[in-house]
Amino acid sequence: MSLKLNLKPEYKSAADFFRNHDNLLLLVHEKPDGDALGSVLGAAHLLQSLGKTVTLVNDDPIPDKFRFLPMADRFLLPEEVEGTFANVIAFDCGDRKRLGRSQGLIAADANLLNVDHHVTNDHFGTENIVDLEAAATCQIVFKIAQELRIELDLDTATCLYTGLVTDTGGFRYSNTTEEVLLIAAHLLTAGVSPYQIVDRVMETLTWPQVQLIRTVLDTLDRDESGMISWVTITRDMLERAGGCDEDVEGLVNYPRNVEGVEVGISFRESVPGKVKVSFRSKYVVDVGAIALEFGGGGHARAAGCTVDGDVDTVKDRVLARVREVVTAVDTKPEATQ
Amino acid sequence: MSLKLNLKPEYKSAADFFRNHDNLLLLVHEKPDGDALGSVLGAAHLLQSLGKTVTLVNDDPIPDKFRFLPMADRFLLPEEVEGTFANVIAFDCGDRKRLGRSQGLIAADANLLNVDHHVTNDHFGTENIVDLEAAATCQIVFKIAQELRIELDLDTATCLYTGLVTDTGGFRYSNTTEEVLLIAAHLLTAGVSPYQIVDRVMETLTWPQVQLIRTVLDTLDRDESGMISWVTITRDMLERAGGCDEDVEGLVNYPRNVEGVEVGISFRESVPGKVKVSFRSKYVVDVGAIALEFGGGGHARAAGCTVDGDVDTVKDRVLARVREVVTAVDTKPEATQ
Repeated sequence: MSLKLNLKPEYKSAADFFRNHDNLLLLVHEKPDGDALGSVLGAAHLLQSLGKTVTLVNDDPIPDKFRFLPMADRFLLPEEVEGTFANVIAFDCGDRKRLGRSQGLIAADANLLNVDHHVTNDHFGTENIVDLEAAATCQIVFKIAQELRIELDLDTATCLYTGLVTDTGGFRYSNTTEEVLLIAAHLLTAGVSPYQIVDRVMETLTWPQVQLIRTVLDTLDRDESGMISWVTITRDMLERAGGCDEDVEGLVNYPRNVEGVEVGISFRESVPGKVKVSFRSKYVVDVGAIALEFGGGGHARAAGCTVDGDVDTVKDRVLARVREVVTAVDTKPEATQ
Repeated sequence: MSLKLNLKPEYKSAADFFRNHDNLLLLVHEKPDGDALGSVLGAAHLLQSLGKTVTLVNDDPIPDKFRFLPMADRFLLPEEVEGTFANVIAFDCGDRKRLGRSQGLIAADANLLNVDHHVTNDHFGTENIVDLEAAATCQIVFKIAQELRIELDLDTATCLYTGLVTDTGGFRYSNTTEEVLLIAAHLLTAGVSPYQIVDRVMETLTWPQVQLIRTVLDTLDRDESGMISWVTITRDMLERAGGCDEDVEGLVNYPRNVEGVEVGISFRESVPGKVKVSFRSKYVVDVGAIALEFGGGGHARAAGCTVDGDVDTVKDRVLARVREVVTAVDTKPEATQ
């Protein structure tokens, strides 16, 4: 079944940028995730099929779980590249600063195409395709490929599927639209194996990660209403598990997913005297607003902040405030998401 | 975007059965899961929109997490229903026996339509639509609705999406086909909220479930090769956590998902002197064959058996055999799934 999408005019401009430039530098934000890598590598394949030469650069090594992506081995550190580039495309990056040291490779008068879906994007490119309706930057790259009338091969489809599946939490978040699933269906016809991709990028746990889950679940607690639940992650726990910073991500989902809970929180001692607080809410509470009060930010359902103090003090302060908010909204009808 | 699927001739016969009968008894297997309930309730809505009267019966109470499904409150126990029915449809049920006590409500000469997707289905109906290519019985019901040319409302779409998402493990298993995702995309246009459905049926954990995860992770172990990992669940652990039998399901995924593991196993003391063994494999090992050797069965990637003996003895026996199999396949190239 062929897929016909409605493409806004900026997709034509982006496709022209792909067509009309060569010797391209392709960049994504530091500490790249599945959508950053999926979109830049998907685009790299598209550009190669147009006969273009591409250079892939990132400040950080590619995480193990994304190394299976075709061409992931082509990434260079900025220090490994000489000179500057006149033609650059940045993917999944809200502002120029998040390109890190790689910014130094962009010529002063470069043609810079900025391809992104974040609402915070500051349109830092000389050309910008910032589609806020897209669930993933991979969705934008897919639509550029449609505009280019390129039939996707398995390698390209694998990259794009990876970004779609990671940025929608496995087609679970509320950004999962009809178009997302239609594109995913179309990518399957190119031979993508959803099982293998999800297994590698979303389900695999390292041994330290499992050890950390087990230690952290020992700290799981909830308030008397059952609507607030939290876990605590100390530096000692992380060290004993042999884990790294990334292993902490996602742990906040355990308290969040407990039946009856509206707000799930993780308290994490990042350095002595500083506690990183992550919030998740289910239906009603705007945790972005709470995080903002503590000097952080985020969305209504997912937010975070860093608070000065030892773990117990920060926990008391934050829980007191969350309790106030939960009590206030408790009587309102359940919002839909 | 409208969805045009190719419908095999048996879909026409099934649609005729829906059209030509009334006062229908709708049944699913005992201990119904998301696809059983999604398909029978989806069909119930379709039949009501055709002006038919339906009676929903199951041997077991509907699990809490599925009670949000529209019309889930209409289920009766067989003891609450008088007489027998001349027109019956069974959903997601491989053989008549799995209908349990509800079988007693089927008249001896009843018209019985059997709607299922299991390869083990024994075609027990007077009419049968057993589509082995369908990932879920909900996919079959969706296609019957297409044959009936019924525009799906939100209630029907919610039921059908629930079965699609649960029987594909959240669009992760290898049964996730283009058609599955196209149907899911189409259901979103009826207003389905993927976030809320997945949250309720797949992500929510009860407090006892979390307690059980934490206790069971304390038993996580792996062999020296790192290719076999396992957890142990004693009756004492389940009791202390306050959990029920269903809470044990899915725990085998923790050892299975550890990086480098090929076979994940859970050993569960079901009654004293009996151990239920669940196997999951990733790419190569046929755990169905191993389970068969121990008197059980299943698929290549998911299987189980019940072995007599205490936990330690059964663990030693089973792990020894799994080690032999893993060692034998270790040198073969990685199979694709």
